[in-house]
Amino acid sequence: MNDTFRPIARLARGFMDRRAGELRAERRIIEAVSNVYERYGFERLDTGSFEYADALGKFLPDADRPNEGVFALQDDDEQWMALRYDLTAPLARFVAQNWESLPKPFRRYAFGTVWRNEKPGPGRGREFIQCDADTVGSARPESDAEMIALAVEGYEAAGLDPADYVLKINNRKLLNGLLASAGVDDGRQQMAVLRAVDKLDRLGPDGVRYLLGAGRKDESGAFTPGAGLGAKAIESVLAFVSASSAGSRDATLNEIAKVVAGSAEGDAGLEELSKISAALTGLGVADDRARIDPSVVRGLEYYTGAVFEAELLLQTKDERGNPVSFGSMGGGGRYDDLVARFTGETTPATGFSFGVSRLASALRAAGKDEAAAARGPVVVIAFDQADMPHYFAAASELRAAGIPAEVYLGGSGMKAQMKYADRRFSPAAVMLGGDEIAAGNVTIKDLDQGRAAAAGLTDHAQWKEGRPGQVTAPRDELVAIIRRIVGGEP
Amino acid sequence: MNDTFRPIARLARGFMDRRAGELRAERRIIEAVSNVYERYGFERLDTGSFEYADALGKFLPDADRPNEGVFALQDDDEQWMALRYDLTAPLARFVAQNWESLPKPFRRYAFGTVWRNEKPGPGRGREFIQCDADTVGSARPESDAEMIALAVEGYEAAGLDPADYVLKINNRKLLNGLLASAGVDDGRQQMAVLRAVDKLDRLGPDGVRYLLGAGRKDESGAFTPGAGLGAKAIESVLAFVSASSAGSRDATLNEIAKVVAGSAEGDAGLEELSKISAALTGLGVADDRARIDPSVVRGLEYYTGAVFEAELLLQTKDERGNPVSFGSMGGGGRYDDLVARFTGETTPATGFSFGVSRLASALRAAGKDEAAAARGPVVVIAFDQADMPHYFAAASELRAAGIPAEVYLGGSGMKAQMKYADRRFSPAAVMLGGDEIAAGNVTIKDLDQGRAAAAGLTDHAQWKEGRPGQVTAPRDELVAIIRRIVGGEP
Repeated sequence: MNDTFRPIARLARGFMDRRAGELRAERRIIEAVSNVYERYGFERLDTGSFEYADALGKFLPDADRPNEGVFALQDDDEQWMALRYDLTAPLARFVAQNWESLPKPFRRYAFGTVWRNEKPGPGRGREFIQCDADTVGSARPESDAEMIALAVEGYEAAGLDPADYVLKINNRKLLNGLLASAGVDDGRQQMAVLRAVDKLDRLGPDGVRYLLGAGRKDESGAFTPGAGLGAKAIESVLAFVSASSAGSRDATLNEIAKVVAGSAEGDAGLEELSKISAALTGLGVADDRARIDPSVVRGLEYYTGAVFEAELLLQTKDERGNPVSFGSMGGGGRYDDLVARFTGETTPATGFSFGVSRLASALRAAGKDEAAAARGPVVVIAFDQADMPHYFAAASELRAAGIPAEVYLGGSGMKAQMKYADRRFSPAAVMLGGDEIAAGNVTIKDLDQGRAAAAGLTDHAQWKEGRPGQVTAPRDELVAIIRRIVGGEP
Repeated sequence: MNDTFRPIARLARGFMDRRAGELRAERRIIEAVSNVYERYGFERLDTGSFEYADALGKFLPDADRPNEGVFALQDDDEQWMALRYDLTAPLARFVAQNWESLPKPFRRYAFGTVWRNEKPGPGRGREFIQCDADTVGSARPESDAEMIALAVEGYEAAGLDPADYVLKINNRKLLNGLLASAGVDDGRQQMAVLRAVDKLDRLGPDGVRYLLGAGRKDESGAFTPGAGLGAKAIESVLAFVSASSAGSRDATLNEIAKVVAGSAEGDAGLEELSKISAALTGLGVADDRARIDPSVVRGLEYYTGAVFEAELLLQTKDERGNPVSFGSMGGGGRYDDLVARFTGETTPATGFSFGVSRLASALRAAGKDEAAAARGPVVVIAFDQADMPHYFAAASELRAAGIPAEVYLGGSGMKAQMKYADRRFSPAAVMLGGDEIAAGNVTIKDLDQGRAAAAGLTDHAQWKEGRPGQVTAPRDELVAIIRRIVGGEP
């Protein structure tokens, strides 16, 4: 094999290999959240990885590099297909295609990989897992409230404490109503206002004031065009987004009403939020778990009413030990026009999406990812090819008792085998040498106890004499002894 | 929204929407098989969806339509990436990239979607789920035996009866040794022989005889070139592949030895199979669960030694009621040269792959997919907006008791709501009308009992009078009554 082409073994840019601990934490989250969704009567749906590009809301390319932001390719029949970038666009396509035959409202949940063709960076991969619930076909604010309750239960089922996070609720209609009162009803200008407000955390009210008006030049001299609002509208927007969200939901609504009330759209938004708040109380979601916060924006253009965002409250630390705020762990909102892209008919819909990797990071930040630390298998040491049947019998007995176990199947000697067991985080090694087999015995090494004891010893001779955590016992006590070790009993 | 472009809501060609029942069955299989893998000491690994095309074993394109058979696209930096078509090629890349830091042997399992850019057809999608275990770094035949034992335990954990299926074992070295004795040692000619033997089921010995020799013309007149063996070699191959596999593993090996023994490679293959058979016995896998069968080929070129195939023995029926043999549900084998594509160094490896969808179909064929029939949520009927808090409280109580429940959140009346509950396969509907609330009662409709009773009634008036399966009780008995209904108690 010397003349042949040898590819370099390397990961594709922005994609990751993930090992057992991380995957165990992720699976636990998906199961916890899925169970909550099922308890709320949502049924699982899985759409394919690919959708036609036009169905995803991107349009046919005229350039060499089509569909910026998605992974797209042209099929044999010339149609452009793209990997889904979220789970909502495929749901809208599915609902439009199957509306007649679905139970209505249609309550579905989904989890799966989504792909973004973006520039990868540290912690920013080009694929990740989302876990969503959506209700399509209900215009009731109660279905929005349910999304928030689902999120609260989901985060707690995944392991967060109530004090660790908060849900923030807003409604696009409030700001749109306020803008309408100021004579601004152009969709693009509304989106520019939203984008400006979205920078409140980073730039503060003064920076946002420029972005709402004529534009802003940053320290580097780069200029961002503004939304072009007049001075009075700018101050209204800033008063709105700064309305305190610290009190009860009703208190916040009263405060917002002072700024927003009067336009039809603003009043509709207030009415919806008021019903959402009442339903949340009915669902047992207290005021401090889910607050009304007028500064929440959510970047996506397709939201038409209520929007939700889940924020981790824990201060986490970066690699240098500096405190960083973790930010959003998931969110959602109402999108009444997404199905209409296909059908032309408004179909009310609302949903919430957990970012599974973000939530896993949040749990890690909160010191709650025990799953990652789980144990490896018991390793049965292989001394002699002729005794393989004995080793296999021991491993089979342990498995039958529900204890992960394996026979070492490499070609190395005793020392390397013990090192292997250590690297697998094995709780114990099982030794069936010729002497043990002849005497009907088994030697078992408790690797945890051995590691702990070894830490207190000062020299190798002492270790060799004491053989910490090692016991020789009748062969038929194998399972009982290992069970004690695995169970952590003395 | 009248002038805008409306895409047609349609599935991308070869991709599927899958609903709750099918997904539940699939998830159950993945969990059962994963648990078996973990009990055998395999650790989960997940590689990314994309690999560089050269790492997958395809080569850089010179045409407009590169990488036939895979979904490939060119990244910003001009490199060609492709979606993985199995889980083995990414494993080989991962192992080559991380060999120094891995515990050896490296025992990993994986499940996930794989993609094939092939012409879709009925039951043939362009993505499906595989669930694999592989051991890299062990040349021992015992590690092959373990793959077979894993497969047996996996199929049974997923729900197949022992009599429903059989594992078939062969070794590429047998046929290669036989061909070497006949003077054939060209790799391409060996593969042509394998492809001919692979058609034994369909063409019988006479058809295969042509394909081993000069070639074969089928009924349509199309000509398939043959492997070009001489007459004597052809008869040896046919004697080999027809060796009976009905007896014990040792009896079959004895019979094969008569045809194959004498060449170094054939003897090595016999020796390996003999050790695999002994280890299987040690692992408790009886001769009728895993047979040695010289007609098993496995299409993939990369196998270098033992190959395995799982076959469903149940006769299933097609849509017209004709019996059809189901064929392969999964398979695997030894591939000692796959990591060497990257490193130049032979790295022994063996694995087994469950086709999850095939196994789900097999379970359905065997009448063992109860998962698909699972229940929907209890539906709380919504009569009056003002009473929403009562409905939500009832649903919350049921969920807290672990019973899936939802409040109907659509805009329709009572009749449509009952129809909705029926379509969701709800076990019960909960009614809290004004009268019930005032009296501190709840009305519960047992939908199963109602459906059963309704089947025995002859007219609507009779039904209306009897109200089968409907009970009004004190509100605080809600959970207890629903629990009886869901539990199926009288």
